[in-house]
Amino acid sequence: MARLRPSNLVTLVDLAGTFVFAIEGAMTAIGGGLDLLGVLVLAFVTALGGGIIRDVLLGATPPDALRTWLYPTVALAGGAVAFAQTELMHDVPRWLMTNLDAVGLSLFAVAGTGKAMDRGLPSLVAVFLGTITATGGGTIRDILLTRVPAVLRIDIYASAALAGAAVMVVGRKAGLPPALSALIGGAACLALRLASVRFGWSLPRAVSYGG
Amino acid sequence: MARLRPSNLVTLVDLAGTFVFAIEGAMTAIGGGLDLLGVLVLAFVTALGGGIIRDVLLGATPPDALRTWLYPTVALAGGAVAFAQTELMHDVPRWLMTNLDAVGLSLFAVAGTGKAMDRGLPSLVAVFLGTITATGGGTIRDILLTRVPAVLRIDIYASAALAGAAVMVVGRKAGLPPALSALIGGAACLALRLASVRFGWSLPRAVSYGG
Amino acid sequence: MARLRPSNLVTLVDLAGTFVFAIEGAMTAIGGGLDLLGVLVLAFVTALGGGIIRDVLLGATPPDALRTWLYPTVALAGGAVAFAQTELMHDVPRWLMTNLDAVGLSLFAVAGTGKAMDRGLPSLVAVFLGTITATGGGTIRDILLTRVPAVLRIDIYASAALAGAAVMVVGRKAGLPPALSALIGGAACLALRLASVRFGWSLPRAVSYGG
Repeated sequence: MARLRPSNLVTLVDLAGTFVFAIEGAMTAIGGGLDLLGVLVLAFVTALGGGIIRDVLLGATPPDALRTWLYPTVALAGGAVAFAQTELMHDVPRWLMTNLDAVGLSLFAVAGTGKAMDRGLPSLVAVFLGTITATGGGTIRDILLTRVPAVLRIDIYASAALAGAAVMVVGRKAGLPPALSALIGGAACLALRLASVRFGWSLPRAVSYGG
Repeated sequence: MARLRPSNLVTLVDLAGTFVFAIEGAMTAIGGGLDLLGVLVLAFVTALGGGIIRDVLLGATPPDALRTWLYPTVALAGGAVAFAQTELMHDVPRWLMTNLDAVGLSLFAVAGTGKAMDRGLPSLVAVFLGTITATGGGTIRDILLTRVPAVLRIDIYASAALAGAAVMVVGRKAGLPPALSALIGGAACLALRLASVRFGWSLPRAVSYGG
Repeated sequence: MARLRPSNLVTLVDLAGTFVFAIEGAMTAIGGGLDLLGVLVLAFVTALGGGIIRDVLLGATPPDALRTWLYPTVALAGGAVAFAQTELMHDVPRWLMTNLDAVGLSLFAVAGTGKAMDRGLPSLVAVFLGTITATGGGTIRDILLTRVPAVLRIDIYASAALAGAAVMVVGRKAGLPPALSALIGGAACLALRLASVRFGWSLPRAVSYGG
């Protein structure tokens, strides 16, 4: 009781993000004409891939995502819902999907960063692992579909996750409670991602390119 | 002696599948015009990639495939045989390659599922790891060649591995000896895969796709 | 003091290779029109990806590359330098980049092989892990850009790393000191790679291909 342990918060946050990302992965698979298994596979890897990479890199194996029924079931449920209700899903407006994705991105970035910090890794590495947790699943999904990953294509996507992770690290280093740091970091990621979509922000490119 | 240990069976099964998959990976590389090293690399990853992913996810590192000379040697031997006897390999009829591949798929699915169960992972995860063991090597091979992986393209391929793994899990949960459960699970995978090829079975696609 | 420990040499060698590979990864990203984050990501994975794969396979997690600030900082510095000085980098002649790449390849092959041998893995596997350390980062970079990896496209590239790793293993098995074995192995890799570029050497392809 003497130490505030953020693990329960991390679990909740992980599960919410898992469901959102699973639906997104499934919709990508459906859009690509894959069959039921392909839809479930892409739901699974999109939802759980980032956390699995994080845990493998941390040496925390088997990964949280595979230790219990909980995470795979939530991911497969997201895939199954998207598969069974594809017409409904297609009616979901684009802005809503973008917003839900931004929420998932923020949740995962914060969960991954927190886990790395709890293990005593350097701040720079915690930020890196938070970003990987947030973007790794989508990256595996895109690689499986032989697309250049969204993380490299979309301006201010991984950058938003990275910024949120950095804010969280600074918060904890500054002595804020882990849960509050996570909240502020997640909010920063969410705000940055949504603002970049709305205002069309992008990162600079190298001077000589396109010149 | 009191506990029946399936590890010897698993090793034998792994080695047989390794050789078959190595030849397949090598033939893909030869068909793509790769040089000797590329052929050996694709033989290696196709044969051992699935088991390596499984072991990394289980935290059983270094992976079985890298602990001894045995697995790499069998995989490279498969690649070298295919390279040296390419003309002969091209004469191997398509149905035979399909059948051998189905055998490898069944062997690997069963070996991977057994290893995960022996480690006490949840049944759903054991089924998942069995499927990854069976399809992971071919998936890495396809990613290296920038193709959408067979696991997502071919109807009833990963699904057959998954079904066989599930049958094996149910068998062991029902109290059957591990070796018998593996036999039944492998037979289920093999039968399903070959029947799907013969009869052109496929999984459903989402309602709205192609509509 | 009784045992000669090559770990300091390995660290130095790793850091030098890290910087060279980071610049190369960044230049690839800049050439592909990616933004600042994409440049840093590709610098990071090109420089550290091979060592991370090696450490994950060895079960040495978290990987060396993520344990301290050192490696990520060196990799990101290489990416930032390339990004800020792109014009300058474009003026770097092609032969110099090829030579620096060959040096990085040699350094990484030797570092990876040494680490695997220090862990007591079989020689064949040590050679394999040395080759992966040298070529894994570039492979991930190419996969992220949906290109068939250089390791499979460029004649005598991974093969040079493999040959250097093999020479190093033979040296240590023959009783040479680890540092000397590493020097000879690295020189062998470097000489083979540069000679193959100069003289246009290539590996054989299978008999029937192109026939």
